Amino acid sequence: MADFQNCDSCISSPLELFERVTAQGEKVRSLKAEKASTDEIDAAVKLLLSLKVKYKAATGQDYKAGSPPVDFSPMSNNGPTTALDEDFVDPWTVQTSNAKGVDYDKLIVRFGSSKIDKELINRIERVTGKTPHHFLRRGIFFSHRDMNHILDAYENKKPFYLYTGRGPSSDAMHVGHLIPFIFTKWLQEVFNVPLVVQLTDDEKYLWKDLTIEKASEYAVENAKDIIACGFDINKTFIFSDLDYLGMSPGFYKNIAKVQKHVTFNQVKGIFGFTDSDCIGKISFPAIQAAPSFSSSFPQIFKDKKDIQCLIPCAIDQDPYFRMTRDVAPRIGYLKPALLHSIFFPALQGAQTKMSASDPNSSIFLTDTPKQIKTKINKHAFSGGKDTIEEHRKYGGNCEVDVSYMYLTFFLEDDDKLEKMKQAYTSGALLTGELKKVLIETLQPLIAAHQQRRKQITDEMCNLNHI
Amino acid sequence: MADFQNCDSCISSPLELFERVTAQGEKVRSLKAEKASTDEIDAAVKLLLSLKVKYKAATGQDYKAGSPPVDFSPMSNNGPTTALDEDFVDPWTVQTSNAKGVDYDKLIVRFGSSKIDKELINRIERVTGKTPHHFLRRGIFFSHRDMNHILDAYENKKPFYLYTGRGPSSDAMHVGHLIPFIFTKWLQEVFNVPLVVQLTDDEKYLWKDLTIEKASEYAVENAKDIIACGFDINKTFIFSDLDYLGMSPGFYKNIAKVQKHVTFNQVKGIFGFTDSDCIGKISFPAIQAAPSFSSSFPQIFKDKKDIQCLIPCAIDQDPYFRMTRDVAPRIGYLKPALLHSIFFPALQGAQTKMSASDPNSSIFLTDTPKQIKTKINKHAFSGGKDTIEEHRKYGGNCEVDVSYMYLTFFLEDDDKLEKMKQAYTSGALLTGELKKVLIETLQPLIAAHQQRRKQITDEMCNLNHI
Repeated sequence: MADFQNCDSCISSPLELFERVTAQGEKVRSLKAEKASTDEIDAAVKLLLSLKVKYKAATGQDYKAGSPPVDFSPMSNNGPTTALDEDFVDPWTVQTSNAKGVDYDKLIVRFGSSKIDKELINRIERVTGKTPHHFLRRGIFFSHRDMNHILDAYENKKPFYLYTGRGPSSDAMHVGHLIPFIFTKWLQEVFNVPLVVQLTDDEKYLWKDLTIEKASEYAVENAKDIIACGFDINKTFIFSDLDYLGMSPGFYKNIAKVQKHVTFNQVKGIFGFTDSDCIGKISFPAIQAAPSFSSSFPQIFKDKKDIQCLIPCAIDQDPYFRMTRDVAPRIGYLKPALLHSIFFPALQGAQTKMSASDPNSSIFLTDTPKQIKTKINKHAFSGGKDTIEEHRKYGGNCEVDVSYMYLTFFLEDDDKLEKMKQAYTSGALLTGELKKVLIETLQPLIAAHQQRRKQITDEMCNLNHI
Repeated sequence: MADFQNCDSCISSPLELFERVTAQGEKVRSLKAEKASTDEIDAAVKLLLSLKVKYKAATGQDYKAGSPPVDFSPMSNNGPTTALDEDFVDPWTVQTSNAKGVDYDKLIVRFGSSKIDKELINRIERVTGKTPHHFLRRGIFFSHRDMNHILDAYENKKPFYLYTGRGPSSDAMHVGHLIPFIFTKWLQEVFNVPLVVQLTDDEKYLWKDLTIEKASEYAVENAKDIIACGFDINKTFIFSDLDYLGMSPGFYKNIAKVQKHVTFNQVKGIFGFTDSDCIGKISFPAIQAAPSFSSSFPQIFKDKKDIQCLIPCAIDQDPYFRMTRDVAPRIGYLKPALLHSIFFPALQGAQTKMSASDPNSSIFLTDTPKQIKTKINKHAFSGGKDTIEEHRKYGGNCEVDVSYMYLTFFLEDDDKLEKMKQAYTSGALLTGELKKVLIETLQPLIAAHQQRRKQITDEMCNLNHI
């Protein structure tokens, strides 16, 4: 579960756009030639069409293969700074030029997933008899693949299990990292099913300037934070790859099966790997894929090889599981179902996700109440106006206000949230007052997490034992 | 340990030669750009120079980049059938146009290894106090890397261990497969050291149209044949990758270390992988590399990470270990030393090695005395003359006679072998008589092997237990 971050330009000239259309066309052709999955091809075709539309908008011309734009329409006179309104999302990079954050509706189209709509949320409520989590009600988990299969299985009393994970790139987790775990805990409670949590310390070792020992150490520290989320310890198996891969022939056999059925061409297309990447990176996607199959955990599922898997994760992890879903039927396994969350924004704004490597972009699970207060007051991007007078007159903008965004994640009371939205938008509520609500929401939440984490003994987080 | 076989043309026109020089020049440049190991670069430069010499011989012109040959010298009038006198050897292919077999002296130059000369053989005798094995005396093990380091270690009472392996591509092993094991057994006896034997069932699963279950089954059957060679069971650890990789975190950690330090560019250059290869193949070389490091076997070597490894293997496996030796110092490990054997020729002749997939090219360890007799009489390529009269007059040619070659492997009596060589060369010994000696040598040897194999219980070949 990659969660680090780098930068990718999202500004393109008409010529760059031309090249992107050409490249995307080639990609579609090669996916078809390789008989890639329908999901993959559809997503690529959709992106191609949207690039062609942008190209026409930028140049006033239809895209014509082999004929780069020469005579731009007036629109294109902005030249090389014309923004290409296309967010960039892969497991290592999330970047958008829009202060509201990534356009998730477009991402659903590009990735070929399905929107979590009112109907699905109602079905979840009907089937479980529980009020849907506010992450569902508020569109924080906004996209899915095959969630209806999971609900069918549940209604038919067929077992399924949850799988989520984390890439332990440092010993400090931030509040954004909690999102999939908070939601997964709710799913585990509501459905009463087993959960496996993969800590991809091997991935962090391969990608970062880390020793194996350090990556393993981070895995143990992160495991404590994950356990502190309050999972049912009797139904939860947290494992580090560096340990578990060398302890489970079933897991390695599934990795080998995936590795036999995915080519370098495919991972190049999906993850952007190049010939200069190490062979560990190139084969890693199979290691993140394998826990999607119940036979990777014979100690939990015995000889049952057909237990369906449901994966709650941030949308940037979807490429791994698109690949997994493509391979699954070819190796005789069920495709995993998915629930995708939006990104947790950095304090500085929703153009990118929170990053553990920039201490000021994040609120850490180890922060003191004072640090939390200072960071929010100092760094949380405000959608308010420059002066109190202007703010009272025109009101604040919740769509870009990071404090408000954070409250949608952590303030469970729907009425209170709605009231604050109205008050902030009208100008009745000032930025400082909004920040105060967020500070008073996060301080006890993180203090409670720290209390629970203290109770975690080394034995409890003895990885690889359920 | 790959041991299957396919075909690669070794016939080139001047134009093809030109292209090979050009391609090799590019390879040298890219190896230098990537800061490949000196061993690798040297080997590539040597091959480049030898190709240039051949190019000049074939065209009468010096190679000039960008100027393909247009005006051939008379020598080149043979046109596209001019033989390129270059053997092809990689882990999957051994091919030569020469009936005497691969030119091993050239291979030493190309691979950048060292010849096992009289001096080294004498030193082995001096250090061990034992007569050198006839595989050494007869040049069957003909090349090495760092064997003097091993002898230094042995003299200084520093421990080392042996590592060899086998790719279990079928349940039937042939006599050629015994060569590394016969020699390894001798090394284990003489030096009294631990041995690890890797069965690369994962490799066979990845490369061939095999299920995981079938590959594992072949591994068990092959293990029985290996144990039947008579290894000291208390000092020998035979393991299948599909089992052991999932049972040893130390092994997986070493695999990850190698995978972090080898790029796709490198394995493409060394093994000829392409973008259409599956990611399992691309990352597999790390799995064959890892047993070269003692920390892959904590159950044997405890926490000792600096025990030197000696690998006896056929020369076609050298690419794996050139890569391993390149990586070793970068991950803080000792480079493994190597002893390379020549190939065991097919019954049909020394142009290629014996293959388990063609029953008539091989004598199997399961063959009956009658089958052995029939195969040798019917298929063993003869260096004798067409008629008895001619044979008596001109004599036979031991250099291409497969029966004679086999005797150099299996007839331990030096005097008897020398006498037969003389008699066959002079014409005193007929092909049928030479074949009879081979049949009478192999029949009891294989019968004894079959007897020993019958004693192997399933418990004894319970893989992964030393």
